[in-house]
Amino acid sequence: MDGQTAAHRRRRAGGHSANARRRGTGLIRQSAWRLPDNRDRPVEPLDEAGVAAIHDGAMRILEEIGVEFLNPEALALFAEAGATVSGTNVRMGREWVMEMVARAPARFTLTPRNPARQITVGGRTILFGNVSSPPNYRDLTMPAKSPGTRAQCADLLRLTQHFNCIHFAGGYPVEPVDLHPSTRHLDVLHDKLTLTDKVVHAYSLGAERVDDVLEMVKIAGGLSEEEFRATPRMYTNINSTSPLKHDAPMIDGCLRCIRRGQAVIVTPFTLAGAMAPVTMAGAVTLSIAEALAAIALFQHVAPGAPCVLGTFTSNVDMKSGAPAFGTPEYMRATQMTGQMARFYGLPLRSSGVCTANVPDGQAMWETSNSLWAAVQSGSNIVYHAAGWLEGGLIASPEKFVMDCEVVQMIQRYMEPGIVATGPEEIALEAIREVGASGHYFGIDHTRARYETAFYGPIVSDWRNFEAWQQAGGVWTAERAHGVFRQILADFEPPPMADDRREALADFVARRKREGGAPTDF
Amino acid sequence: MDGQTAAHRRRRAGGHSANARRRGTGLIRQSAWRLPDNRDRPVEPLDEAGVAAIHDGAMRILEEIGVEFLNPEALALFAEAGATVSGTNVRMGREWVMEMVARAPARFTLTPRNPARQITVGGRTILFGNVSSPPNYRDLTMPAKSPGTRAQCADLLRLTQHFNCIHFAGGYPVEPVDLHPSTRHLDVLHDKLTLTDKVVHAYSLGAERVDDVLEMVKIAGGLSEEEFRATPRMYTNINSTSPLKHDAPMIDGCLRCIRRGQAVIVTPFTLAGAMAPVTMAGAVTLSIAEALAAIALFQHVAPGAPCVLGTFTSNVDMKSGAPAFGTPEYMRATQMTGQMARFYGLPLRSSGVCTANVPDGQAMWETSNSLWAAVQSGSNIVYHAAGWLEGGLIASPEKFVMDCEVVQMIQRYMEPGIVATGPEEIALEAIREVGASGHYFGIDHTRARYETAFYGPIVSDWRNFEAWQQAGGVWTAERAHGVFRQILADFEPPPMADDRREALADFVARRKREGGAPTDF
Repeated sequence: MDGQTAAHRRRRAGGHSANARRRGTGLIRQSAWRLPDNRDRPVEPLDEAGVAAIHDGAMRILEEIGVEFLNPEALALFAEAGATVSGTNVRMGREWVMEMVARAPARFTLTPRNPARQITVGGRTILFGNVSSPPNYRDLTMPAKSPGTRAQCADLLRLTQHFNCIHFAGGYPVEPVDLHPSTRHLDVLHDKLTLTDKVVHAYSLGAERVDDVLEMVKIAGGLSEEEFRATPRMYTNINSTSPLKHDAPMIDGCLRCIRRGQAVIVTPFTLAGAMAPVTMAGAVTLSIAEALAAIALFQHVAPGAPCVLGTFTSNVDMKSGAPAFGTPEYMRATQMTGQMARFYGLPLRSSGVCTANVPDGQAMWETSNSLWAAVQSGSNIVYHAAGWLEGGLIASPEKFVMDCEVVQMIQRYMEPGIVATGPEEIALEAIREVGASGHYFGIDHTRARYETAFYGPIVSDWRNFEAWQQAGGVWTAERAHGVFRQILADFEPPPMADDRREALADFVARRKREGGAPTDF
Repeated sequence: MDGQTAAHRRRRAGGHSANARRRGTGLIRQSAWRLPDNRDRPVEPLDEAGVAAIHDGAMRILEEIGVEFLNPEALALFAEAGATVSGTNVRMGREWVMEMVARAPARFTLTPRNPARQITVGGRTILFGNVSSPPNYRDLTMPAKSPGTRAQCADLLRLTQHFNCIHFAGGYPVEPVDLHPSTRHLDVLHDKLTLTDKVVHAYSLGAERVDDVLEMVKIAGGLSEEEFRATPRMYTNINSTSPLKHDAPMIDGCLRCIRRGQAVIVTPFTLAGAMAPVTMAGAVTLSIAEALAAIALFQHVAPGAPCVLGTFTSNVDMKSGAPAFGTPEYMRATQMTGQMARFYGLPLRSSGVCTANVPDGQAMWETSNSLWAAVQSGSNIVYHAAGWLEGGLIASPEKFVMDCEVVQMIQRYMEPGIVATGPEEIALEAIREVGASGHYFGIDHTRARYETAFYGPIVSDWRNFEAWQQAGGVWTAERAHGVFRQILADFEPPPMADDRREALADFVARRKREGGAPTDF
């Protein structure tokens, strides 16, 4: 279906926002902010021997094969800790690794500038964040994807702030390539810290960038250096360069964060059959070894530093070599990594992902697969949970809205009230009252509960076919576009004290005058 | 998005089948037939007290409130068994109910005319069937839904036969309202038994219909009455008329089936807030009471008769009163009923469902929710797993194809090989061989496995955006239409001996001469 062309035409012919209003969409309703408690027992495909086999494999990789660290400081630190350093190759004994990893907390908090948006990472809490780092953007008014801009990035940050089911602002929701790389981080963080009041992230892409972001978070929170360091306020997320390599700026950024009390997520990107073994157990084993090598280093440097084990293990399409996401293999790898995270006592990060290029059926079954795998694996942090298309190469505002429906349903699913079985919920007296011939619409038991009894959707259309067709026969992606436009039209940035806002602007201006960050890395 | 109009135009302008071929879709690939082994521990939202509360509630309904049976024979049988019968109201003691339910087998087989398509119902096996009973049909060439025809019904039966991930042919995949009700069952069963060789179903809609279908299954299988009765060959599925009522033909059909050794599924349709309490525990409790009342009767009549507990508990949209499917409440109700089924030692039937009107994003997240709930609940039989739209009012061939992708992924997900952790899967030697600078594409460990290592999709497009757009930028629903057309073009019915085919045709002709079934029920 030439969906985007039809959409494009339609958009030019009148705009969707007005159209959505004509359809009587009204205010966008959504659930309240909450930290969902995932009470489901995790799905655990590995037996005890399987966990032991992956652990042993990861330990043997670290002992016998080693991991390359391209960061000289890391090499010195490893040598100091007694690891075997040969050039950039580092081998380390399992006792030391396990001793270091055991220092990491099983749970910790992240407190953004608005303390009401504090999040807990670990335990049974599952948190969701926006898509991070796509180089391209496409909404349905555009004939094709194109490189991201600051304005689009800001719009996606508005969605991040709007949706209560999104707990933190991950990386840039689209890479704003209209901004110069030397000062891009200053502008995006300025937008992020003013348009949202949720936990933010620093890319580990060079010392100056990381230090700038740390400073901006401090300023936005009105914090002294001591207050900033007292509890984690933000985090960074790094990928290894699989197989078996950690590059210099990623490790540097993490060291900068942990030394000032902030959190790190280490997420190897291991595509089975490409940069990892074709077997899922092999890919997970490689991923675990890469992650633990870095986490052990960080715990050596800053015992008790908040560290999260990330998983990004999927498979390639063996016909094209392209990555595929939301596959059965992806789901099982996520669950297996969840078992390993619990084995090591580390919080787990996974993702909401898909291979699809447009926000259609395929996009949603792949995304549903990955989001349910996040639930099943006991994930604590779910990256890319809203807005991701084309294996992470496209940020889509329609997909963002659609994903938030799925994410919000997952959070509703976790409310204990749904499965309560007290006498009032078993409702024997109501059943007796209605008997075999009445109905439940009008009875007191129903009237007392109906407003909050059931999930209320964001963009789902629950009308019957005739009513839906009468209203224009609008498919989900186009409805989502209307919701997106309406959210932008209604958006009000969260409050921020004038002095902090000015201090933030001053900092950005000063750092721009100084030339920002070097771009030669 | 005016998706269906664009599609309609496109279809008229050239047809999608040819288009699909031009795109080089080639042969539709799919996984082999298998009976999936669901090794995941079920998700169990109820604690022991919760299970006890629902059980006690259901038993008190049966003891204190009673269930209406509009079938006189059933009333006499209940009286004979010692139940308290007052008019059409039947109350029964929990000891008797539990004694009867305990007679039902925890697992049994169903053997269709092709013994290679035998299925096992119970244990950890999960089986999937096509959509059943929508009154309307719509493919993307049609501007709107319209009442089903025999030709459309046959096309959906061809899909049922084609897809290895579909294990049984449920009810009519669309109601062919162009056929007279008195002989409709004869024509559809003829089509079903010749176009498929999988397990079939009889609607419990009057004695003559049920007896006709039993006879046709016997003929198609070339079975004597003794052989037919020796093991279950087919089944019926009934709904109660919630709240608390079983109508006459449904119970009659079940009695006819169990007396000749065939299986029954009892599936109360309890919409919380409408014909059941607004609380999910109350709706499930009501559903359990209704189902167990019927199953107890059947076990009294035919001890050990194969019976399945069905669940169809969802919520209404409290704004419109319309049913909503694939909701968080639906998922939890399915899981709760799964716990109760295991408590009673009965196999469980659930469904693949959605509220959406078209095969778009909403359709697929709702369907994914319901199919994953089927997995999580330990369901043994999944009805409506392919082709369902608009809360069951529309059969869609595109949705059928798209659902089969999800169902096939679930079956791949259940293959133990994905999570194997032997030395060959941990792949330490491959990891050593590649080290930190190579890649895994070309190594022996990959080459020995790559053809079967990963899931191969039916309709998912895993190309990047540019390649996808170059090939026409076709959204999933339209691609599914192309797959549908290609399956029809390539379809060959399964072999059937000439004598059986003739005997079947003769039977249909004779019963038509006799006038078929009365239509005054």
